[in-house]
Amino acid sequence: MNIVIAQSGGPTCAINASLAGVFTAACASDEIGMIYGARNGVEGILHDHLIDLRSVLDSSEQLDLLRRTPSTVLGSCRCKLPQLEEDDRPYRQILDCLERYEIGAFFYIGGNDSMDTVAKLSAYCTAVGSKIRVIGIPKTIDNDLMYTDHTPGFGSAAKYVAVTMSEIARDSAVYNLPSVTVVELMGRDAGWLTASSCVLRTTGETAPHLIYLPELPFSEERFLSDIRKEQNHRKSVVVAVSEGIRLSEGGYAASAFQSGADDAFGHRYLAGVGKYLEDLVRKHLKCKVRSVELNVMQRCAAHLASKTDIDEAEQIGSAAVNAMLGGAHGCMMAFVRSDSSPYSVTVKTVPADSVANRVRLVPSDWITESGNDMKPEAVDYFLPLIAGELPPVMKNGMPVHLRLPEMISG
Amino acid sequence: MNIVIAQSGGPTCAINASLAGVFTAACASDEIGMIYGARNGVEGILHDHLIDLRSVLDSSEQLDLLRRTPSTVLGSCRCKLPQLEEDDRPYRQILDCLERYEIGAFFYIGGNDSMDTVAKLSAYCTAVGSKIRVIGIPKTIDNDLMYTDHTPGFGSAAKYVAVTMSEIARDSAVYNLPSVTVVELMGRDAGWLTASSCVLRTTGETAPHLIYLPELPFSEERFLSDIRKEQNHRKSVVVAVSEGIRLSEGGYAASAFQSGADDAFGHRYLAGVGKYLEDLVRKHLKCKVRSVELNVMQRCAAHLASKTDIDEAEQIGSAAVNAMLGGAHGCMMAFVRSDSSPYSVTVKTVPADSVANRVRLVPSDWITESGNDMKPEAVDYFLPLIAGELPPVMKNGMPVHLRLPEMISG
Repeated sequence: MNIVIAQSGGPTCAINASLAGVFTAACASDEIGMIYGARNGVEGILHDHLIDLRSVLDSSEQLDLLRRTPSTVLGSCRCKLPQLEEDDRPYRQILDCLERYEIGAFFYIGGNDSMDTVAKLSAYCTAVGSKIRVIGIPKTIDNDLMYTDHTPGFGSAAKYVAVTMSEIARDSAVYNLPSVTVVELMGRDAGWLTASSCVLRTTGETAPHLIYLPELPFSEERFLSDIRKEQNHRKSVVVAVSEGIRLSEGGYAASAFQSGADDAFGHRYLAGVGKYLEDLVRKHLKCKVRSVELNVMQRCAAHLASKTDIDEAEQIGSAAVNAMLGGAHGCMMAFVRSDSSPYSVTVKTVPADSVANRVRLVPSDWITESGNDMKPEAVDYFLPLIAGELPPVMKNGMPVHLRLPEMISG
Repeated sequence: MNIVIAQSGGPTCAINASLAGVFTAACASDEIGMIYGARNGVEGILHDHLIDLRSVLDSSEQLDLLRRTPSTVLGSCRCKLPQLEEDDRPYRQILDCLERYEIGAFFYIGGNDSMDTVAKLSAYCTAVGSKIRVIGIPKTIDNDLMYTDHTPGFGSAAKYVAVTMSEIARDSAVYNLPSVTVVELMGRDAGWLTASSCVLRTTGETAPHLIYLPELPFSEERFLSDIRKEQNHRKSVVVAVSEGIRLSEGGYAASAFQSGADDAFGHRYLAGVGKYLEDLVRKHLKCKVRSVELNVMQRCAAHLASKTDIDEAEQIGSAAVNAMLGGAHGCMMAFVRSDSSPYSVTVKTVPADSVANRVRLVPSDWITESGNDMKPEAVDYFLPLIAGELPPVMKNGMPVHLRLPEMISG
């Protein structure tokens, strides 16, 4: 059989490693012929935009470069399939393409929106009697997918946050003046990335001194009084705050800064929580204050990739091929943590429809009573995920990335 | 004689390497006894806050950690000396402290504001018949000091910008949609850091597609038409823009976003040029647009330090000690580039008062006729400065930084 792989949703540093994992395992199997990559997620299948991956990933150097290249070499999309009952045309169109290329399995690397596509498409294939298997491979820096210990991409993002925040802590401490630095981190609904910044303390750093997650209601009054308390015993206060924190009365804290635009999945565009809190501190505490938004670097800073994350992303990609060969269909691959110390994980499958459109939150019992810090359990959970470095291939002092040629077959 | 070293102005990744250079050369000299570090720049001398550096930098491991630690381990200040005629008290206070500690030389690592202090203080010492020598050691990520080929700290900042922008370019290219990404870079008056992003093209990257420096007047109309032109032949347009760009009619482009606060040297607080241009694009071009502010990471991301920069910062620190022992006074150490290929530099001294309060701009003949890109001369200039890597000492997947204990002698 032939197979096709696509990447979807927001970029991460590990999504290409999962592609490498699928590709390597597929190459190792006698049952698999052509290995196609679809450009821009399901859009590539809808529009017949496939690439023969064997012809572009033709050396171990290329494969190694693929692992170390951030973002999605195949391109991504934010395309949502309609409910089958409402419009079956895209389903028929996808099946038509897959059948024309004699595809036996479709691997979709993505987040919970992509698992929605996996669930819908696999159900459709089954319903119309097609033998095509559809498998989801998780990725998201948000770490908020259900039924997996963690998601590929998260460890590298967490490592970027930890390293950068340790440097920001050094930067913030230079003047002999009270100062507040608010670091805004990604995480719309779940605060995993923000919570992960607690690992910094294991290096002897005291920052971040306050951590605010969207899992708890956010109170401006408590925020200001928390900072005042910290200022009693330190000059430079560093705060980690999730972009998705919610004011007590409901909405996102930074609603004033939102563009109002919703994406195809109904996510509100968020920006500016850090700036909002910076202004709040400036107004009420009258001290030096700065906000820093780590922005897209959280998901693309491959030069700070966690080796554990990249290795696991490749491993779960390969496991998907083997699961498919064993008959898996309509499922997402997931990590099960056997132990944290020494750290070890295994891979299992979970039904894609149980993951789709749901969000896994940071456990509330990992958050301290004060609501502004993490307990040691959280450190134990996060620490293994950022272990190890995988420096980029460097040329002229800069990283070399793999870029696929615009090769269209079909 | 004893010596004292202080660090001043905004942090960089190389300012501690210069401290290491002074310390190492001082240790190697029989003429030098105590090596003091002043906390928070001249404030530490004004307030008798000195540290015995031999007691804290007591192993090669500590020294190596110092080199790889961003920001200023001694702390910094933004303290400006008044004109002597107006108020000689701080001058007398400083001299009193230096004499009490039997200091024969004061090394001040800083930017052009710090060179103002070096110039004023050295003139004062000479005028009152003191034999104390005052030497400036350059540092600034802005690279805008007169009479030096480049400044320590700049190479690491430029490397951070190049690496991060290459990753942002990968991130921006994922969707099959026209998009504009505006990357806002530091540089109030001079666009060196923004200009340096042109080196990316030597890795095969096409970004940044447009580069705007404060050296030229900025026109919103031309900016929009430049982007439209780029969009004719590419989906994802990445723009590098200096925080200090000026609208044709004069003031900074982002005046609307300024807090209005001036620092002690009369610098206006700048923030938000990127956001401003993002809004402009959204309004006029109606495509996906995002702005990214690289913020303080440009000056503190030691995990991406340029080895050339760190080595040179240490070298110029050591050269300052040797110049002082040879009788130098009232000067700043400076780099002279002998060649770019193969790259080599030597160190000389220049009068501190010729550097103080002045700004060196990017040569206008390095900017293309179109005003939105750099010529190959610029690439030749920048490329050697970002060469080589010096990864941090890692523990638990995160960098270890040196933090000095609060040891006060005096």
